Amino acid sequence: MMSRLAPRWPAWLFWWRAACAQGVSAQQKTWAGASRIPGPGGPWGATGTSPLVRRGSSSAFSCAPEVALTRERYSVRRLPFSVVSEDDLAALERIVPGRVITDPEELEAPNVDWLRTVRGSSKVLLRPRTSQEVAHILRYCHERNLAVSPQGGNTGMVGGSTPVFDEIIVSTALMNQIVSFHNVSGVLVCQAGCVLEELSRYVEERGFVVPLDLGAKGSCHIGGNVATNAGGLRFLRYGSLRGTVLGLEVVLADGTILNCLTSLRKDNTGYDLKQLFIGSEGTLGVITAVSILCPPKPSAVNVAFLGCPGFAEVLQTFCTCRGMLGEILSAFEFMDAECMKLVGLHLHLACPVQESPFYVLIETSGSGAGHDAEKLSGFLEQVLGSGLVTDGTLATDQRRIKMLWALRERITEALSRDGYVYKYDLSLPLDRLYDLVSDLRARLGLHAKHVVGYGHLGDGNLHLNVTAEAFSPSLLGTLEPYVYEWTARQRGSVSAEHGLGFKKKDVLGYSKPPEALQLMQQLKTLLDPKGILNPYKTLPTRT
Amino acid sequence: MMSRLAPRWPAWLFWWRAACAQGVSAQQKTWAGASRIPGPGGPWGATGTSPLVRRGSSSAFSCAPEVALTRERYSVRRLPFSVVSEDDLAALERIVPGRVITDPEELEAPNVDWLRTVRGSSKVLLRPRTSQEVAHILRYCHERNLAVSPQGGNTGMVGGSTPVFDEIIVSTALMNQIVSFHNVSGVLVCQAGCVLEELSRYVEERGFVVPLDLGAKGSCHIGGNVATNAGGLRFLRYGSLRGTVLGLEVVLADGTILNCLTSLRKDNTGYDLKQLFIGSEGTLGVITAVSILCPPKPSAVNVAFLGCPGFAEVLQTFCTCRGMLGEILSAFEFMDAECMKLVGLHLHLACPVQESPFYVLIETSGSGAGHDAEKLSGFLEQVLGSGLVTDGTLATDQRRIKMLWALRERITEALSRDGYVYKYDLSLPLDRLYDLVSDLRARLGLHAKHVVGYGHLGDGNLHLNVTAEAFSPSLLGTLEPYVYEWTARQRGSVSAEHGLGFKKKDVLGYSKPPEALQLMQQLKTLLDPKGILNPYKTLPTRT
Repeated sequence: MMSRLAPRWPAWLFWWRAACAQGVSAQQKTWAGASRIPGPGGPWGATGTSPLVRRGSSSAFSCAPEVALTRERYSVRRLPFSVVSEDDLAALERIVPGRVITDPEELEAPNVDWLRTVRGSSKVLLRPRTSQEVAHILRYCHERNLAVSPQGGNTGMVGGSTPVFDEIIVSTALMNQIVSFHNVSGVLVCQAGCVLEELSRYVEERGFVVPLDLGAKGSCHIGGNVATNAGGLRFLRYGSLRGTVLGLEVVLADGTILNCLTSLRKDNTGYDLKQLFIGSEGTLGVITAVSILCPPKPSAVNVAFLGCPGFAEVLQTFCTCRGMLGEILSAFEFMDAECMKLVGLHLHLACPVQESPFYVLIETSGSGAGHDAEKLSGFLEQVLGSGLVTDGTLATDQRRIKMLWALRERITEALSRDGYVYKYDLSLPLDRLYDLVSDLRARLGLHAKHVVGYGHLGDGNLHLNVTAEAFSPSLLGTLEPYVYEWTARQRGSVSAEHGLGFKKKDVLGYSKPPEALQLMQQLKTLLDPKGILNPYKTLPTRT
Repeated sequence: MMSRLAPRWPAWLFWWRAACAQGVSAQQKTWAGASRIPGPGGPWGATGTSPLVRRGSSSAFSCAPEVALTRERYSVRRLPFSVVSEDDLAALERIVPGRVITDPEELEAPNVDWLRTVRGSSKVLLRPRTSQEVAHILRYCHERNLAVSPQGGNTGMVGGSTPVFDEIIVSTALMNQIVSFHNVSGVLVCQAGCVLEELSRYVEERGFVVPLDLGAKGSCHIGGNVATNAGGLRFLRYGSLRGTVLGLEVVLADGTILNCLTSLRKDNTGYDLKQLFIGSEGTLGVITAVSILCPPKPSAVNVAFLGCPGFAEVLQTFCTCRGMLGEILSAFEFMDAECMKLVGLHLHLACPVQESPFYVLIETSGSGAGHDAEKLSGFLEQVLGSGLVTDGTLATDQRRIKMLWALRERITEALSRDGYVYKYDLSLPLDRLYDLVSDLRARLGLHAKHVVGYGHLGDGNLHLNVTAEAFSPSLLGTLEPYVYEWTARQRGSVSAEHGLGFKKKDVLGYSKPPEALQLMQQLKTLLDPKGILNPYKTLPTRT
């Protein structure tokens, strides 16, 4: 079939600027170095010099300026948990022999988030290998009233995976075994500490894909992805983890192991308990293993990168695209001109098309290369002919596809190099999605370095970022609660995919009614009556 | 695009037997009569004579033999709820004036499930129109300790929607308003009592489809679908309601309205409370409104109906199909020869292909008719050439597509006309899926009229049904716990999509560990401390 219908790409689509090629080589160099290494540049990019957090060294941070302690910057009051004693350390050593980390240097990295905006002062990090070890740890901590901060790849955006005070860090880094993979059903069962990119490679070799992809894939753990209900780049095609995660094993606050690790696509036996833990950011239980349904790997993938004259045209391009590409559309991302400026400035990536006010990245994934090429070609003719798109380029091979994706995926990294970043991750109605960016740009004027908007347009998800030379309470006061109130007026979400963690927990009320907050508190009390699991996170501070 | 690539179907694929055409006309006659009318034939088919339950008449049941009272057949002990008094009726009348039904004849139908296997003895049915009315009802019942049985279309398979004793039936029949539909995002917001088929028609006229389809669509309510986490025929393509339901409005046991009725694809603000209510069968709250994401309507739909020589070939056909049809595959259903025999015998539908031990129904839905036809044609050539399939027919127009679907969708109806039906709805590993049917057929011998297997193969979901002249405790004893133990050994689910309701609540332990059962009980106690919501359902009887 594929040979009968050779792709009919217009020649112009393969046009590629010299400038882009330059940018690409720089990007590829860092890509290789960055793919597994969270450090000052973060898990999304980086310098290639900083050792892995899970390898237990912290020299990456030695030359960076000190991050303010969370408890001081945000005036947090410590809850009345016990303090880890020598007896506790001895008991924990018996549970995970040789894997109780107390060296202050080794503890430096896991105490700080990759964005370098929050810092805890934990004195102990534990590295269990099995669910039973996690269960023993939690049973002990529960009895002793010791607070715990579960940590995966520490790649979160909202300070959810770092301690606030002296919580014991329970790292999933050594829980990195694949338990099983079924090569007919595509069901993968693995421990929570498996790195997303490694899982991805594993299943791709067997003809499947993980239904989740995100910029931090080289560092993030699948357990953390599930605990934060990560969205990412494949959401448009494969939907939420709430549908693709088939089962979980979770250790509850008192050390009970809750084994709901089934591999069944359908199971309506009682309440679906795993849903409680998806997206609850480690505050209701510690996820120790995951069963996830992997769809078959598409045999043909194409990426188009297009320039649009305005946001109205971006939206119309989306509608046209959804109609003409239908079931093969797998991503529709957008970024504004400011984003492109920053990836050029800080990462030396060049824009592959004519400068435009907006850019969109469209990915197709299908089972027939010829058919997909025809569909995409028809769509591109349509949007170019009608003026919705002013310029574009297309990639069909893996190398160029990665190059184009880098422009979008590495915006986070470019922003982090631009200064202090105020990050907002919002769900908004499509037709108002960009208004907030323009509005803020006018409102902030010269008080901000850059105000940028990008995100997963196909999911109604805007990443709004404001950069400044340094953290400033007055700029923060101009931004908040303004951004949240604006979002609430549109009945949007003040956290589309990043979660609430520490930094957003007090804005929950902008998206949820008081009755919902009350029920959330009741669930927390039911599942973690002493509140030892990831305290100071997700739920608003009780006043 | 479609005109450039005309479908290239081999001529044989359009071959259609005279016998089938006869069967079809009979089927179409009943189809029209059946689409909205649950009665003795049930919501899946029927005689066209029985009035709607929600229209408040029960003559449908007047000539049918009496159904045994659930409390007697199953020896259930009434829990210590209050009994509805005259004062209660007066108070309820003030809440829903003119919509308090106490006429015993009108109450006959809603007291019995459509399968005619369980019967309650409720003396009151209420018909609220708004969430506020539901809230007032529940607040009153909570204060008075009156038990409530929420009821949608009463099309469930496990006795979940009928009272067991004298619970007050709260019907969603008058809560049938569409609140909003967004024609770019495809988000539909509606009240819980909307009939699935009507919603389907509404969104299809606007270029979208409801991501859920099932045989009972003409009667079932969307609220009931969500409350039971219905699976159905589009699950393979659009996944679980846990991913496609974006928001819910729920009234809690004490009358609190929990408004989580957002229309956002992504929202990670706190715990996802709506998940608690999806699939909890009205035992944790009453769903009053639903927000659901409707995907764009595919422009091309094809259905192939094929005969396979054995179950191994059915499985191989599935693997081949998934590889070659990829993203356009929207259903893969199978049925055995016994099913075909029963739809022929009781519904006069003829087999459209040569008699075979197994049949599969494959549906494709895509955005390019020409491309889809090419893919399907290539696949069919492959499976016919390799002997996986021995005969087949194809439908590309709406009328013939419905005819082929009827063979699969109306099996339930054919079974109900065959006698008393022992129904099992199991998730099993694909390679063992049919073994249980063969095993049981041998085990039961002449004790059963028919042992049939069919279901959603693509989802690993087997519907195993055994028919007999009448209910027999000894046959039940041969079937249970054998079927459940067999399923548990395969780590399967004893209720894939039907839920537990009244009839399966005590087998929950075959699919979930004791720790899960305990947490479910705790959730029930948290959300419904007096246990007034749909008592005797979902959770095992406490001993």
